Amino acid sequence: MRLGDVLRHCGIEDNAVYVGYYGRDLHLSGDPDKVVISRGVPVEKALQPETLLAVRLNGEPIPLLHGGPLCLVCGGWPASASGKWVHGLTVRDRIHDGTKMGGRSYRVPCEPIAPGSDIGDEQMCIIESMPVKSLITFPRSGLRQPLAEALTIRGHAWAGERAVSSMHVSIDFGQTWQTARLDKPLNRLAWQRFHASVTFPRSGYHEVWSRAVDDHGISQPMVLPGWNPKGYLNNACHRLAVQVTG
Amino acid sequence: MRLGDVLRHCGIEDNAVYVGYYGRDLHLSGDPDKVVISRGVPVEKALQPETLLAVRLNGEPIPLLHGGPLCLVCGGWPASASGKWVHGLTVRDRIHDGTKMGGRSYRVPCEPIAPGSDIGDEQMCIIESMPVKSLITFPRSGLRQPLAEALTIRGHAWAGERAVSSMHVSIDFGQTWQTARLDKPLNRLAWQRFHASVTFPRSGYHEVWSRAVDDHGISQPMVLPGWNPKGYLNNACHRLAVQVTG
Repeated sequence: MRLGDVLRHCGIEDNAVYVGYYGRDLHLSGDPDKVVISRGVPVEKALQPETLLAVRLNGEPIPLLHGGPLCLVCGGWPASASGKWVHGLTVRDRIHDGTKMGGRSYRVPCEPIAPGSDIGDEQMCIIESMPVKSLITFPRSGLRQPLAEALTIRGHAWAGERAVSSMHVSIDFGQTWQTARLDKPLNRLAWQRFHASVTFPRSGYHEVWSRAVDDHGISQPMVLPGWNPKGYLNNACHRLAVQVTG
Repeated sequence: MRLGDVLRHCGIEDNAVYVGYYGRDLHLSGDPDKVVISRGVPVEKALQPETLLAVRLNGEPIPLLHGGPLCLVCGGWPASASGKWVHGLTVRDRIHDGTKMGGRSYRVPCEPIAPGSDIGDEQMCIIESMPVKSLITFPRSGLRQPLAEALTIRGHAWAGERAVSSMHVSIDFGQTWQTARLDKPLNRLAWQRFHASVTFPRSGYHEVWSRAVDDHGISQPMVLPGWNPKGYLNNACHRLAVQVTG
């Protein structure tokens, strides 16, 4: 069901700012008295039609391992904004201050900083929509490939709250690129499948790189685009190792 | 003067394969009995009109520090193919086997290999024409820049025996690029100047990257394009650190 329908059914005040979740998970230490993660999203994101309180996955009840029986799903945002084993929601009149909402958790410098430099927690901002990214899901990295044969690759691409508008692959470390076939998303915030066929010019070690571009013209970079203390938002190109045999 | 004119004046046999140089430099150890570097180029490269036995630099005798009074200049190839303090040339009926011609010196795997893997010296090939590259020569990295002002950058680009056909700069780690102004080379194998003006969207740490594309459509990559034992041919984008203050 839509989280927005639930919130409207319950009624939300005009001063609502943030929706936080509480889950039935245990702290990583195993200590039942320790406070577990409790994050969430601003009300505007909570009211988006794609933001769900999910009870089914592919038509079946959500498995326990995936956070069932009840999951919060806030697509396009860091996965930690989506709660598993949800047993409570809170509508806050300020930014939710549950565990892992403050400090350096899921936060990056509000203003970009030089690699390795230090700033106070108050200069860190919460990560919201995620940057464009892609993964080669087939074949598995480390394969051996006959020189004479074309290699078919496929994968998934997404761009937070944006759409992916084009997809590119390189077999020469980004010196040249070819366009891959890119499917439309099934709905807003869904990932998009891509497909490509590459032929290697000679035998030896090669890499296949995938690079997605979002509908604002922003490309995946080839390296981490901006250092931050916890290493978040690394959407550098995915690299597949291929030993071409001749 | 042109090396080709000298070679033709002396006469070269049909079986000539390589031209090697001998210089008046001392071995790095300071030991006068140790053999110093003696490299060179194939006869075809030696006969190119741009391959010079240079006696002047900007109209003046070549300073001792730059290899004067006589330098071999084989443009577009590794600098080690160009001899300093030249006092002798040899025309060989095989690939020249002077010091630093064999083993792993100025050689890369003939066939690309996986990072860190080991191969025999016989599978290493001599580096010839160098790949496309660019450097930002102004301003100096590490500058502070007011947010309200545009930053003018300039630099040089070259592409071995090819020409540079376009030049691009990025202020967001390669997520987007703008085209820079690129001057024509003064002659074949000469470097090309480029110029750009960039404006930063916010204060904080930024980098300006430069990326040249050669006339075969091959771009500088953002990382080393292919591991090799000595780390040669790293033509990854040049990066300028800029602290934007606003």
